[in-house]
Amino acid sequence: MIDQFPHMRLALDEARAAAVRGEVPIGAVVTGPDGRVLASAGNNVIAAHDPTGHAELTAIRAACEKLGSERLVGCNMYVTLEPCAMCAQAIAFARIARLYYGADDAKGGGITVGARIFSQPTTHHRPEIYGGILEMESAQLLRDFFKKRR
Amino acid sequence: MIDQFPHMRLALDEARAAAVRGEVPIGAVVTGPDGRVLASAGNNVIAAHDPTGHAELTAIRAACEKLGSERLVGCNMYVTLEPCAMCAQAIAFARIARLYYGADDAKGGGITVGARIFSQPTTHHRPEIYGGILEMESAQLLRDFFKKRR
Repeated sequence: MIDQFPHMRLALDEARAAAVRGEVPIGAVVTGPDGRVLASAGNNVIAAHDPTGHAELTAIRAACEKLGSERLVGCNMYVTLEPCAMCAQAIAFARIARLYYGADDAKGGGITVGARIFSQPTTHHRPEIYGGILEMESAQLLRDFFKKRR
Repeated sequence: MIDQFPHMRLALDEARAAAVRGEVPIGAVVTGPDGRVLASAGNNVIAAHDPTGHAELTAIRAACEKLGSERLVGCNMYVTLEPCAMCAQAIAFARIARLYYGADDAKGGGITVGARIFSQPTTHHRPEIYGGILEMESAQLLRDFFKKRR
């Protein structure tokens, strides 16, 4: 059977690795216009002492460094959870072409709830957006993580 | 005469230095609970190839690194322009106590327009906010910069 979502599976691997480090298990992958992986990252807030160290921002910064450009034109992002407003706005700034994400985030999301970044006139780029990709696995990872911490 | 806004003047100096580098002239300063400067930065998007290299994010990351913490509890931020949604959400994540900013940003702001980050139920920390601090100087810097680029 062909795996239809290899990049989301890589993002899930990053999320699992983040959990092992004690970080909230969220992972992200950026692919180039040719479909190859440019960067992948898990949340890295606590270890890096960086409130901006979300998986998405970390992957965007790494992909931009790799390309030597502040824009990721034609690139796609895969992330295991609906991005927050900070990351959604960064996705817009980076001009990412397509955003694939796993579970919705009713409490902290910035796309379907709250700031609704891609519905604002102040947001000057909107990627194509596909939610719900392997969402059960993503949501289960988060549930397991927070159950253990309680 | 006592300068009432020394930290905003430092932020304006960072904005001017950014303009010299060809970056959009915006500057930011983070002060610690004792009022001393922890970090200051200007926009650094183009040189760093980093779409997240806004003055606010750069200053937050530097201040967190200095304190060895992903939170800036009791710290204040001074920024020459109304933060965008990305930076406003980062300010919330960092738990900044007070936000002082210069000019409003009708086109790209994330506080008074658009995403209105600090009015969203998905934003779990809201600083005290004071706008309009030395706003004429901030707005003039931006006008001069964009006039030269046209």
